Amino acid sequence: MKIPKERPEKYKGLKRDFAEEEYINLQPIQRGGILTEEAMRAILEFGDGYSTCDWCPPKTARLDMITSPPIQDFYKDLAEFLGMDVARVVTRCREAKFIAFKMLGRPGDYVVLDSTAHYSSYIAAELAEMKVKEVPNSGPPEFRVDLNEYATKIEEVKKECGRLPAAVLLTHVDYLYGNLNDARIVSKIAREYGVPFILNCAYTAGVMPVDGRELGADIITSSGHKSWAASAPTGILAFNRSLEDKLTARSKIEGDLTKRKFGAKELAMLGCTVMGAPLITLMASFPEVVSRVERWGEEIEKVRYLVSELERIEGVRQLGMRPKLHTLTHMETEGFYKISLKHKRKGFFLYDELRERKIVGIQPGLTKHFKFNTYGLTWEQIRYVRDAFFDIAKKYGLGIS
Amino acid sequence: MKIPKERPEKYKGLKRDFAEEEYINLQPIQRGGILTEEAMRAILEFGDGYSTCDWCPPKTARLDMITSPPIQDFYKDLAEFLGMDVARVVTRCREAKFIAFKMLGRPGDYVVLDSTAHYSSYIAAELAEMKVKEVPNSGPPEFRVDLNEYATKIEEVKKECGRLPAAVLLTHVDYLYGNLNDARIVSKIAREYGVPFILNCAYTAGVMPVDGRELGADIITSSGHKSWAASAPTGILAFNRSLEDKLTARSKIEGDLTKRKFGAKELAMLGCTVMGAPLITLMASFPEVVSRVERWGEEIEKVRYLVSELERIEGVRQLGMRPKLHTLTHMETEGFYKISLKHKRKGFFLYDELRERKIVGIQPGLTKHFKFNTYGLTWEQIRYVRDAFFDIAKKYGLGIS
Repeated sequence: MKIPKERPEKYKGLKRDFAEEEYINLQPIQRGGILTEEAMRAILEFGDGYSTCDWCPPKTARLDMITSPPIQDFYKDLAEFLGMDVARVVTRCREAKFIAFKMLGRPGDYVVLDSTAHYSSYIAAELAEMKVKEVPNSGPPEFRVDLNEYATKIEEVKKECGRLPAAVLLTHVDYLYGNLNDARIVSKIAREYGVPFILNCAYTAGVMPVDGRELGADIITSSGHKSWAASAPTGILAFNRSLEDKLTARSKIEGDLTKRKFGAKELAMLGCTVMGAPLITLMASFPEVVSRVERWGEEIEKVRYLVSELERIEGVRQLGMRPKLHTLTHMETEGFYKISLKHKRKGFFLYDELRERKIVGIQPGLTKHFKFNTYGLTWEQIRYVRDAFFDIAKKYGLGIS
Repeated sequence: MKIPKERPEKYKGLKRDFAEEEYINLQPIQRGGILTEEAMRAILEFGDGYSTCDWCPPKTARLDMITSPPIQDFYKDLAEFLGMDVARVVTRCREAKFIAFKMLGRPGDYVVLDSTAHYSSYIAAELAEMKVKEVPNSGPPEFRVDLNEYATKIEEVKKECGRLPAAVLLTHVDYLYGNLNDARIVSKIAREYGVPFILNCAYTAGVMPVDGRELGADIITSSGHKSWAASAPTGILAFNRSLEDKLTARSKIEGDLTKRKFGAKELAMLGCTVMGAPLITLMASFPEVVSRVERWGEEIEKVRYLVSELERIEGVRQLGMRPKLHTLTHMETEGFYKISLKHKRKGFFLYDELRERKIVGIQPGLTKHFKFNTYGLTWEQIRYVRDAFFDIAKKYGLGIS
């Protein structure tokens, strides 16, 4: 098919609309995914198509068996780092959840999940043809998930279906308020009922210490591009030995005529998963990730400081549980909203003002509520962000206590 | 979880075991996936996690709606380039096939496919809980798929199940022999029966001209890292408007308590797919891809020349259909096999000899049969490869006619 010759020209010289090194990026889902220098070098080395597969072992021809680059070792180290027995890198955290649901249950089953779960947890259940039962949260301003209610919800499922849910899923830290949920409460309940417990660590593993064994997780899912200094798309599916047979079940299909079989291939992985650049960034960033989770305490100090400073501005308060236990933060900012009502740029004034001050990542148009993430910012940058907000508040006549 | 401090050190400085610029790489699945310079620049710009999502539109929050970088336009141009109505970039060609099977049929359905299909076509059907019915091929030396037999196989399915197969899949060029199948024969049959026709263009679209409209495809699947000068993992799912409702069906799940719904999200995509580096390489390489498919004729000249030269070596012949219509080539090399029987390195001698001559990509250990791909090699490199094989043949006393 011929398309006009000049049409593809627009794909030359693709650039982000800000130079990363000149701006402070507060984007809630981007802070944990910024590549390390090692990852940047590795992505250039392994950018070409199937370059990770130079040494694909001919007999199994499986990604997790490749020893050069050391993918096989990496999968083991990744599992150990998470306090789990086995790990697979998959294309997205949502795919990890889909695989878990699909391989643990059957169509019509329930998944019990927290009501602050990411949309992709719901849709992963839907693609696996399952229903969801939500565990309530306390609503504003805390939105605290009532973790003990998991037991009630499992009971409800039992009553309704005569069988247990296929799985229980808890979002370790939710995407809305950055609330950290105590996984041990839910794992205890799940264990009592004998239901597999999936801990979705999209925002936690890779930035803060997560030990699946200590937390009682049967499965951990996570997102490489969200929290492991890796390129998208990368997901992590880590699990205990007891679920290995189900999650890594091999292909059984056979050609009716040729009798071809593919018994080495893992069915839910469709054989191989991330055979390329994003996996390599995950591996190359791993040394830094292993060490950075130990510095989580300081990350919490920084976000608490920024929150307490921003709350000095008239009409500004943090939503979600207090004090902050995660760097993802949701602010209610009535003060800025009032300004937006009279501003000719409406809600976009705040984005404009911040951008002028070399700060990006607050969603353009939002002033009543917005989210940010301070992960990995230096103290100097934190103070700079604080000053920028104070400056904007003063410019528009908001009081600062 | 603490892992020993020194353990992650091995993931620093990851390198391929040969410097790409110094070697000729004949790897059958790698030639079409080598990045363009534009793609290399783009992957550095968009290497960070979710960097393609800087301008995710808040209301839909969907990858295919992003206009900066121009993802929305790209999806349209990609569809048009393939002679199809709609395109989505997914994580792998195998995922594209899984999505097609899953959304077009139901568990227990049949997929009719050629017996030279890639294993991932079988496994995609298996994950969708379907069975396969294979269309035979002629066996050695041609392995020509008997395309007219698709009708027979559809009839068999009808008789066995009382309903039509969920889909018919044809591998446009197979991974084993590089045989090009005439899609029009199969599309005509599929249309007569009213069964959706999937053309798997993993080895064709992106390197040679493919016009789905002309070929009668309802769905085209392809692989960015195999044939579009893109990083892994990237797959393409392109389809006609008539299948749009099924393939891009929106999420319908609803939270039982919160009534949360995600009606903007495409179910089979799990919302978003390749939100990062590999997608950007696919886009950045697109201008070159659009122009390179026009040079396919010369690629065929080169492979035919090399095949005819290599066949001058004693005990060497090309398998698959003749003359070559694709650059992926399977050689039977009895001559080299006989040498390997006496060589102290056994089958590895050929790899060693080639590598010494700065040629890689022939699978280590193989001498009786091996595959290579000449796509994108210069005439000078083609002659260099020929000379290297002649040189090795002479060294071990094989005749050259």
